Amino acid sequence: MTHEHARAAILSVGDEIVLGQSLNTNSRWLSDRLVRAGVSVRAHTTVPDDLQLQAEALRSLALEHDLVVCTGGLGPTADDLTRGALARAMDDELVEDTIALAQVQTMLEARGRALTPHHRAQAMRPARAHTIPNLLGTAPGLWGTLHVRSTAGERVCDVACLPGPPREMMTMFESHVLARLRPPSGRTVRTRVLHTFGLAESDVAIRLGELMERKSSLLVGTTASGGVVSVRLRYEGPEPPAAADVQLDELERRVREGVGEYLFGRESQTLEECVLALLRARRESVGCVESCTGGALCEVLTRVPGSSASVLGALVTYSNELKNKLAGVDASLLVENGPGAVSAECASAMALGGLEGLGVAHCLAITGIAGPDGARPGKPVGTVFIARASRGATPPDVEVRRFQFTAEREHVRDWSCRSALAMLWQHLSGLPPMKLLREQP
Amino acid sequence: MTHEHARAAILSVGDEIVLGQSLNTNSRWLSDRLVRAGVSVRAHTTVPDDLQLQAEALRSLALEHDLVVCTGGLGPTADDLTRGALARAMDDELVEDTIALAQVQTMLEARGRALTPHHRAQAMRPARAHTIPNLLGTAPGLWGTLHVRSTAGERVCDVACLPGPPREMMTMFESHVLARLRPPSGRTVRTRVLHTFGLAESDVAIRLGELMERKSSLLVGTTASGGVVSVRLRYEGPEPPAAADVQLDELERRVREGVGEYLFGRESQTLEECVLALLRARRESVGCVESCTGGALCEVLTRVPGSSASVLGALVTYSNELKNKLAGVDASLLVENGPGAVSAECASAMALGGLEGLGVAHCLAITGIAGPDGARPGKPVGTVFIARASRGATPPDVEVRRFQFTAEREHVRDWSCRSALAMLWQHLSGLPPMKLLREQP
Repeated sequence: MTHEHARAAILSVGDEIVLGQSLNTNSRWLSDRLVRAGVSVRAHTTVPDDLQLQAEALRSLALEHDLVVCTGGLGPTADDLTRGALARAMDDELVEDTIALAQVQTMLEARGRALTPHHRAQAMRPARAHTIPNLLGTAPGLWGTLHVRSTAGERVCDVACLPGPPREMMTMFESHVLARLRPPSGRTVRTRVLHTFGLAESDVAIRLGELMERKSSLLVGTTASGGVVSVRLRYEGPEPPAAADVQLDELERRVREGVGEYLFGRESQTLEECVLALLRARRESVGCVESCTGGALCEVLTRVPGSSASVLGALVTYSNELKNKLAGVDASLLVENGPGAVSAECASAMALGGLEGLGVAHCLAITGIAGPDGARPGKPVGTVFIARASRGATPPDVEVRRFQFTAEREHVRDWSCRSALAMLWQHLSGLPPMKLLREQP
Repeated sequence: MTHEHARAAILSVGDEIVLGQSLNTNSRWLSDRLVRAGVSVRAHTTVPDDLQLQAEALRSLALEHDLVVCTGGLGPTADDLTRGALARAMDDELVEDTIALAQVQTMLEARGRALTPHHRAQAMRPARAHTIPNLLGTAPGLWGTLHVRSTAGERVCDVACLPGPPREMMTMFESHVLARLRPPSGRTVRTRVLHTFGLAESDVAIRLGELMERKSSLLVGTTASGGVVSVRLRYEGPEPPAAADVQLDELERRVREGVGEYLFGRESQTLEECVLALLRARRESVGCVESCTGGALCEVLTRVPGSSASVLGALVTYSNELKNKLAGVDASLLVENGPGAVSAECASAMALGGLEGLGVAHCLAITGIAGPDGARPGKPVGTVFIARASRGATPPDVEVRRFQFTAEREHVRDWSCRSALAMLWQHLSGLPPMKLLREQP
């Protein structure tokens, strides 16, 4: 009984989502993955932990869709009702799955814990459904098929049920659901993403001009997140994949021409990955001296696997005393009538101090006012100085820039880190210092 | 025609959401606000920019709900279809609203821009609907009423349409929608959340036992995120708020009894906020020495506004050289045949070195193997040693614990930070060191 998955819906389950206690990030991720696999997503729905509502939602979505990906409600507690809801929607009974039970047991043993009746319930499945193994947690997933009667006759809809924790959900989707997708034949969907930093989304739109008009089978769109403006290229049409790729190649060439040297990466590449790749190629090291970002810059860099090849460490000099003691910032810069901790002079001294103290080839230093307190005349919340110092010349090459970010703490910290990375990226790429968004003259 | 808003749904509109390009944060915010206002939210739904699908979603939600809050689709471009969809769902015609038109014009003038036909379209509304003024953007909102026929007779459902940009949406909700809400007079909804760290979700379920069974008007549920297991308490029933609170007080007492000293906070409190509150009350400072977490612990602490009162700084000693040079870890610990960088001895030395070098009252040190590389015999990926050192005694009080986390980089880093915070939290709370989840004997 194979039908195509032309239209998909995503069903999220959980009181914590409908009550507004948790943000639903799974639906976005699943949509993106399904669309890139050629399956069109037409709806997101969220229901509370309620067996009857969930079963009704499954049957009602099955009337209009060929595939429903459901997340949540597979845990071991009494409010995890997805197994029962799928059984009710399939009009099936719950049976214990021997292999799933063994997996639950193995997972618990690895954690040195005993099987409880709660965990045992996780190995139940509707008799006509299959389980999807979970290598990261105790909750197996489910794959079942609903048969519903609509005015247009009987319809068939596949249902994949995955656990709510994103890591488990993503891994199971990649390893088991992706292979079961049947995107409609006769239609090709190909996507590409190019990432820029330093331009506003509206600047990118102006640079791309008519490329962004919706026409024929080629679509160009932009999304912005934390200062990174990503340009999404998409082909959806009747051409075979090779011909679609030729069209996308030409489109990509024109997009690259438009955004120019602000383009730093593609697909899943992040700015920090691109910076680390350049450092690795040059066998050079990096370190950070951070004030208002409190360690966030080094955190972002070391999130990348293998970053220890280039990142040696950081000094988080949150207090003025530590700016002096650890980074060697001259105390005269920090006194009442001096330039102060939030100044080009201090940022520059921090970067040079880190170059020396950390023994690195490049040092990025950030000092600014993340808020809500700390504003001073002429230096409102969001004022940040970023310095890059690099060995090679005597004295070392130092560059400082001033930024004015929007006055929201998380935003200031986030943009400071990425702007610092962009400064190092421009330097390592051999580009002239190009003005970045929110940079002050 | 006033009916009560007993059951509400949230409808989000936009291709960017169903395609997975944007994260839907509006639904969470609206749910939280509605539930706190006593209106029960029963569903979230998202549809693409499609007039027919949106009109159908409105009518179908009206069959089961008394209020729908719809966001998105009110902009000036061709893919903004909410005005037309509401008119179709109401079976009404679109008319131009004179006051809304004046507001759109004023808003454009303030930005030095001229009225275009696109913008003029934003002043249209279904003839029997009202507009909701928008003081932050050009898109007015709408308030209309749907009449639908269900098997149970005619039903009435109010619909509030708000723009998608969160700032505009929130302001209009607070200033105009909140006052129009009619939470059921005979029914009360009250929620509480308590946060625990150090127990598995299934442990919490066992400790809460029959409290988690769904019965009567009191509900207890759990959600887990990054090691924090949150217990959600909810009253929904006929009692007046004061009596509901009495029932919740008693329920909370029993939940607290069950999870005991693993409970660290409530409502929106995070573990780092609770740690910082304890430090502030004692006027004591904290610093970090981080290896595998690369600055993440200090980053988490300094994310909290006002954290500079207690956090002085951190040393990120990613390389062994810096462990020695900055934190004073004895080189003999780090040589080939020594205990190595990932050891109780090294963690302890890092914490003591930080106490001294950062001049803090408490220092948390983390060293471990975040992976994917770096595993050693007897020390698989996920092995982490965490030390806490505190001044006061001579020599200072040091505590080291060994953890075995799941072998996934982001996970190891995340759990390491929170486990370190939990160790300091237990110490500052005057609790005996209680074993934490994933802690090794």
